[in-house]
Amino acid sequence: MARPTPLSGFPELLPADRFAEQHVLDHLRRTFELHGFAPIETRAVEPMDQLLRKGEIDKEVYVLRRLQAAEGEGDAGVGLHFDLTVPFARYVLEHAGKLEFPFRRYQIQKVWRGERPQEGRFREFVQADIDVVAKDELPFHFDVEIATVMAEALSGLPVPPLRIQVNNRKLLEGFYRGLGASDPAAIMRVMDKIDKLPADAIRELLAKEDLDAAQADKCLALAAIRTPDASFADQVRALGVSDPLLDEGIEELAQLVSALSDVELDGVTVTADLRIARGLDYYTGTVFETELEGFESLGSICSGGRYEKLADDGRNVYPGVGISLGVTRLLVPLIARGHLTASRSVPSAVLVALIDEESRPASNAIAQRLRARGIPTEVAAAPQKFGKQIRYAERRGIPYVWFPAAGAGDPGADEFQRGQVKDIRSGDQVYADAGLWSPPPGDLRPAVITPLDTRGATS
Amino acid sequence: MARPTPLSGFPELLPADRFAEQHVLDHLRRTFELHGFAPIETRAVEPMDQLLRKGEIDKEVYVLRRLQAAEGEGDAGVGLHFDLTVPFARYVLEHAGKLEFPFRRYQIQKVWRGERPQEGRFREFVQADIDVVAKDELPFHFDVEIATVMAEALSGLPVPPLRIQVNNRKLLEGFYRGLGASDPAAIMRVMDKIDKLPADAIRELLAKEDLDAAQADKCLALAAIRTPDASFADQVRALGVSDPLLDEGIEELAQLVSALSDVELDGVTVTADLRIARGLDYYTGTVFETELEGFESLGSICSGGRYEKLADDGRNVYPGVGISLGVTRLLVPLIARGHLTASRSVPSAVLVALIDEESRPASNAIAQRLRARGIPTEVAAAPQKFGKQIRYAERRGIPYVWFPAAGAGDPGADEFQRGQVKDIRSGDQVYADAGLWSPPPGDLRPAVITPLDTRGATS
Repeated sequence: MARPTPLSGFPELLPADRFAEQHVLDHLRRTFELHGFAPIETRAVEPMDQLLRKGEIDKEVYVLRRLQAAEGEGDAGVGLHFDLTVPFARYVLEHAGKLEFPFRRYQIQKVWRGERPQEGRFREFVQADIDVVAKDELPFHFDVEIATVMAEALSGLPVPPLRIQVNNRKLLEGFYRGLGASDPAAIMRVMDKIDKLPADAIRELLAKEDLDAAQADKCLALAAIRTPDASFADQVRALGVSDPLLDEGIEELAQLVSALSDVELDGVTVTADLRIARGLDYYTGTVFETELEGFESLGSICSGGRYEKLADDGRNVYPGVGISLGVTRLLVPLIARGHLTASRSVPSAVLVALIDEESRPASNAIAQRLRARGIPTEVAAAPQKFGKQIRYAERRGIPYVWFPAAGAGDPGADEFQRGQVKDIRSGDQVYADAGLWSPPPGDLRPAVITPLDTRGATS
Repeated sequence: MARPTPLSGFPELLPADRFAEQHVLDHLRRTFELHGFAPIETRAVEPMDQLLRKGEIDKEVYVLRRLQAAEGEGDAGVGLHFDLTVPFARYVLEHAGKLEFPFRRYQIQKVWRGERPQEGRFREFVQADIDVVAKDELPFHFDVEIATVMAEALSGLPVPPLRIQVNNRKLLEGFYRGLGASDPAAIMRVMDKIDKLPADAIRELLAKEDLDAAQADKCLALAAIRTPDASFADQVRALGVSDPLLDEGIEELAQLVSALSDVELDGVTVTADLRIARGLDYYTGTVFETELEGFESLGSICSGGRYEKLADDGRNVYPGVGISLGVTRLLVPLIARGHLTASRSVPSAVLVALIDEESRPASNAIAQRLRARGIPTEVAAAPQKFGKQIRYAERRGIPYVWFPAAGAGDPGADEFQRGQVKDIRSGDQVYADAGLWSPPPGDLRPAVITPLDTRGATS
């Protein structure tokens, strides 16, 4: 068979890069669990009628068909999920009787979209979502919690600086209504285009919605407000628009950014940014977007918000607030450009050398002693000259080579566990006992490295 | 929307059960990495021509089609992978220039098969595979390594006893050839049916392959041999058949079971079982199957073997040896019958109670102090009566409730971090400082429990 070629839009990682991804996924999981978010996984497929409830995305769905389906049987009636929100809403309804509300969950899974691949857009990609969902009522402090947990999860990642931008749809809707717009939602849809169109084009569209020049100016002035703290509130009020929903939105957004300013974050900033609207219709309050510095063209890599009706089974309504991190969208462009990888391509911290094939059980016994103390270890594949075995380790990035004592006897005997261990980076070699020696903690697992120093530091 | 119903063959877990699954997956990953196996993930889809190379399984493939594919565009030309071996072989060829051989990898992913669902057979399920693949030549000690690593990975799992059964196709082929069979592969295919057909039917089929009654008796006698050590060799030789390939097979199998008998295992036994053939054609030496005690009707839950030609790009041949654990097939029947779950439905070890809504920042600060020391913590959703907050914890299985000191001042102040913590199982309540107190290690994460005591112990 000829060498296979990659499938466009379906990224795959080499082992060293996969370690970097795993490091990020582990950090996310750890943060989510520290905050009490429970792990769930949903099946990869949903019935087509579920997937098509939001009309906008139907073009992107992959439909499944059994290859050997009976004549006329057609599609299997299911498609691959394109996000983790639709499956989560279905999961909540299906298992509502067995879940405790408010229900915090995180979900890290692949999703699929049949769209045209381009940088930052994939056909298969990993998302990491957190949501809190309640029965009937979900207090606003959960919006603050969701933002805090995701900001902490993004903090300290081996990636360029991240800018979380927060806004509130009540603030926008209230402002447009207070301004006199007859259809505030229509104004929001226009203003959502502000990054794509020049100001004059926006003014023209606003004029079509019956806003005069002064009103349009205020819309543009509102969208220009961005502050790292609650001071946005004074700037909004200075525009002289008033409305009860606007007040509510200002109050919520101020609470959120104030709470976030108390959280210690590394490489993550949180800004009230009144330009953010999120195109999708179901958000009803808080909305989030996140930019990656230097990679703004990727679009938002972490987005979400509050939806008063995540799910509804006729008896109960389930409001939710959540945020979704595009893990693949964040990491793959960095990996592809050499900004992110790991220090080795194998988990092994130690390669136990092999004197000859007969002494393999002895080398295995040494390796087993090291593993018993949590040190990832492999044994050389063949009893080549030691120089070749060292190069074997070098090519994989394994930092230590263990040379068993030559001519030792029974692998179980204590003297057999002794030998010499060489740090092949420095060349330092010391006598050691496999029951006692450990590498420095930093060498125990592959280290994530950021070779082009995007943040001025390795993690 | 009405309450959704489950999709047959697509199992989903509740949070407590997912913790049990995660515990198993973490244990597998840790074991594989301790032995130097690198993590990879392959995309979920493969080109149809790749998937259909092995003719037998084509009926099970799910083909993908873009819902909005242009008229006449048809299928997307890809299908969901039905195992992790076909994608791994493709990955090896595609990335051969960037991999170091021998290449050890583990891969834990979902796979899909469109077959009729029944107990132990799913349409979507998780597999955990380990393989070693080399260029041109792969010494036999890797067969021993693969068996050892998977036996260790299965050791100590919270499941009923597992019986790994090992055989060697060279032994079988050599035996049938030494016996005088003109088509040893045909005999192997007959003998592979030994669990499904009575002995007389097997004899009849053997007769059709031109074996006389004495020869057939020897085939049946060979299939009856099973020993926990290398003593099978004498029993095979006592049948009076000789052939060089038989000798090679005996030697390999003896090496393997001897090496495994040196490994300390908990709840796992390894047996040379000369009945095992594995139906699929590509195995060329060692073969593995695994039974779960009390669940034999599920079939083998962990299978694999040696294939001299895992992949082939025209210039190089890549031999491999590997084994695949059906994680879903192992766990879901246990979970469904109440044999396996976890002690709580949330990661939180502590619920910080809430005196009133105004003191939420104080309760948050306490929670944050606990999290900073790795203690999963959540804050009560609402300032209900303490009795209600305790029941909130109880329903989720959270073992500790933290009561902040009433009337304390600034959340940053030290006295604020003090309070009382109650073990709600025993009712014991003590004064504690959020910067110092920790739960016992066993309470830190949800404990895996085996309520029906399938192994006489909880893990």
